[in-house]
Amino acid sequence: MHIVAIGGSDAGISAGLRARELDPSVDVTVVVADAYPNFSICGIPYYVSGEVRPWQSLAHRTHADLAATGMQLRLDTLATRIDVAGRRLTVRDRYGAESELGYDELIVCTGASPSTAGIAGLDELGPEHGVHVLHSMGDTFALERSLEERDPQTAIIIGAGYVGLEMAEALTVRGIRVTQLQRGPEVLSTLDAELGGLIRAELVRNGVEVVTGSRVERVARTSDGLTVTGTGAGGVAFSRMADLVLVVVGVAPNTGLLERAGATLGAGRAVVVDEAMRTGLPHVYAAGDGVVTHHRQLGATYLPLGSTAHKQGRVAGENAVGGDARFAGSLGTQVVKVFDLIAARTGLREREATAVGFTPASSTAAADDHKAYYPGARPITMRVTGDAGTGRLLGAQLVGSWGTEVAKRVDVFATALHHEMTVAAITELDLSYTPPLGSPWDAVQVAAQSWTRMHVEQDAGVSDVETLDQPADSR
Amino acid sequence: MHIVAIGGSDAGISAGLRARELDPSVDVTVVVADAYPNFSICGIPYYVSGEVRPWQSLAHRTHADLAATGMQLRLDTLATRIDVAGRRLTVRDRYGAESELGYDELIVCTGASPSTAGIAGLDELGPEHGVHVLHSMGDTFALERSLEERDPQTAIIIGAGYVGLEMAEALTVRGIRVTQLQRGPEVLSTLDAELGGLIRAELVRNGVEVVTGSRVERVARTSDGLTVTGTGAGGVAFSRMADLVLVVVGVAPNTGLLERAGATLGAGRAVVVDEAMRTGLPHVYAAGDGVVTHHRQLGATYLPLGSTAHKQGRVAGENAVGGDARFAGSLGTQVVKVFDLIAARTGLREREATAVGFTPASSTAAADDHKAYYPGARPITMRVTGDAGTGRLLGAQLVGSWGTEVAKRVDVFATALHHEMTVAAITELDLSYTPPLGSPWDAVQVAAQSWTRMHVEQDAGVSDVETLDQPADSR
Repeated sequence: MHIVAIGGSDAGISAGLRARELDPSVDVTVVVADAYPNFSICGIPYYVSGEVRPWQSLAHRTHADLAATGMQLRLDTLATRIDVAGRRLTVRDRYGAESELGYDELIVCTGASPSTAGIAGLDELGPEHGVHVLHSMGDTFALERSLEERDPQTAIIIGAGYVGLEMAEALTVRGIRVTQLQRGPEVLSTLDAELGGLIRAELVRNGVEVVTGSRVERVARTSDGLTVTGTGAGGVAFSRMADLVLVVVGVAPNTGLLERAGATLGAGRAVVVDEAMRTGLPHVYAAGDGVVTHHRQLGATYLPLGSTAHKQGRVAGENAVGGDARFAGSLGTQVVKVFDLIAARTGLREREATAVGFTPASSTAAADDHKAYYPGARPITMRVTGDAGTGRLLGAQLVGSWGTEVAKRVDVFATALHHEMTVAAITELDLSYTPPLGSPWDAVQVAAQSWTRMHVEQDAGVSDVETLDQPADSR
Repeated sequence: MHIVAIGGSDAGISAGLRARELDPSVDVTVVVADAYPNFSICGIPYYVSGEVRPWQSLAHRTHADLAATGMQLRLDTLATRIDVAGRRLTVRDRYGAESELGYDELIVCTGASPSTAGIAGLDELGPEHGVHVLHSMGDTFALERSLEERDPQTAIIIGAGYVGLEMAEALTVRGIRVTQLQRGPEVLSTLDAELGGLIRAELVRNGVEVVTGSRVERVARTSDGLTVTGTGAGGVAFSRMADLVLVVVGVAPNTGLLERAGATLGAGRAVVVDEAMRTGLPHVYAAGDGVVTHHRQLGATYLPLGSTAHKQGRVAGENAVGGDARFAGSLGTQVVKVFDLIAARTGLREREATAVGFTPASSTAAADDHKAYYPGARPITMRVTGDAGTGRLLGAQLVGSWGTEVAKRVDVFATALHHEMTVAAITELDLSYTPPLGSPWDAVQVAAQSWTRMHVEQDAGVSDVETLDQPADSR
């Protein structure tokens, strides 16, 4: 049996590994468009900052590790056509030579490419002009070359999502003065503005100039450098100059190969797959950033994340060798480090929840990560969203200092969401406690109790004594 | 309506707070045996170490905070008799004067007292001789006085459970040479010896002399200091001398008051209560370290913990004002800091699981807390126990460095246990990922996958390729 996976990133490699793990007699070939299979794309900002060196350490596995798994890798090889009926894949190698690979099962993991959000001028400008996107190791090397050769003093980052924020930190660490342009009213628009504002303050505290409400229309090259123009807050035109421009405004799924083979596009114009990662084309699976994301609360959506790609690839690999795995669904759990703050979320915010028929209500609470009397306690700001009708937990957003276990606290919420707990029931969880690391009611329980007091007990006629139980909880 | 709570620690205060929160018209009186209501007993080791000063900051709430809740406190007052039929409580104040308090509902939270495990000599020796137990603020002040006035150079700690380990650190920080005597074969006997050994190494690395397998029989005073004698490994008698002796070998529930009123004793000779915290005596609830612990896996047991006392007190307070709350049950989730290591557990170990009819199997895995390429990654050792028949998660034990989010990782396991997940399903949880704080498969998922490979997939005939998927997981 011969399985071919297309794509050397998280989904493709996970698929191949899982297939080989379950059935070592299976031949697995992975077709990789570049020379960098199994690299941790999420780590690129930390290479740019200089915290990770050399670039080779960004690999999840070395070539030797990969070879030891028994997978065959075809590097610098582009998949150009799928013959679904004939179960043959046409590929083109680095010299332009085409050949065909027969397969029994095909797993397509072609990922996504950086979006340019319709910004004019980006067609003509590239790394050679100091204008960059950042998604692949190739993009990374190009940016590093720019940083070394152009020695930019100033940079404009277009976008303030996860990668944009990480890059604001990375370039600041490199000594570059960063201006961050964000279209929406607040940075990190995946959080409510109340929490996004904490992230903005952290950026500003670290010298990043943040300009929100700015719609970028054009990037141009002038004799003095690069100019970014657009419409700012209040409809006023703006223009900014810098030595380097980084465009990180999201990604779009790479679907051409599967589209031409007859696959259907769905949410986010990504390829439609079922929970078994089947495309509907016989013997063709797909996984990763190129496909729709089954979300436990939203149904099929598009929410590309590395952790999701790993899971989807694992499911595809298992099913390709005859398994019966199902992707259990995303909750959109995400976390990002921005200088000394950590921001995380899982599940839905109010607008998203309303769109799928819930009656969301939210409350914001702050509680120390551990007992205030033990040195180093710092507050975590938590916004909990629940359904006002059923009391069910819908989502949580957390912002706190690095070192306050925000990432794993959001995971407690994610695990609670997985099981459709009510917000009130979070109080019943038997969570760990020692004064240097927590409180008898953990911070997540303080947040849950705050929501319950506001949206359940008060509605039930319980008087407004909201802060009564707070001291024990938060200290 | 008048509610009387006996006990000024976690359970009693939580009960009073919850009653007042739900019905501010209720009168609540809390009878407190000493002058230190609502103190964080778990914080005492950090006062002894000098990290927490002054001692007043150990209070969850100040007297003013407590007064603001509208509760009445009767300090230095001992409850001596319950007249169940007459709903009257006899109390004795600091001057020895007895009086009676009428109540509508009574909540008894008399806690536990330090055990002395049948060690001879402890009847005649006390703080004035440098022999201490440690459970109350009174004990704390006595120990602090000894440390200041006797200026001990050496100390023997009898016991190596949570408090014993925290005190080994605290006394070491104070510059005292500590010998820790442990009856069992390894320190922290609530963990499997494989993980306990990591804690022992950390103690030794910090200069603590650890002697396991030593059954202490007698503490005596000689002209040179204090002598601890007993039987060591291999049945050989041992004798150790020190300037100070601390006996921290567990606690026994304080049940006299309720026993005399007709309550029943159960597991651990603690007072039997149902999940609503009813004692069976009309209008008498009980909560905290004096009562049996309903455990989600073991049924009624005795497992006194501060976090549990808070939850039980809250349930009792809610029911005393006519609510219908149930204690959802403990999982024995615990965490302790020992110098730079954190040890945590939740759920059952093999022996405990076997005793209640499971067919447990365990596996141990190590995974970095975050991607190895990002600075500061450190391994977490995780031992997962599951039921070999059903694949259900039964428990988890974790040991890792301070700062590796071990406490909240055990909480992810605890939340999974709460929902009776299988070990394999943990892989499906959508947990957060960013390279500075995690991996695409979080450490807890690496541990779950390791268990599943060993105990499910191999049993199902899947070949032994155990390490194949490990690199991606752990790096």
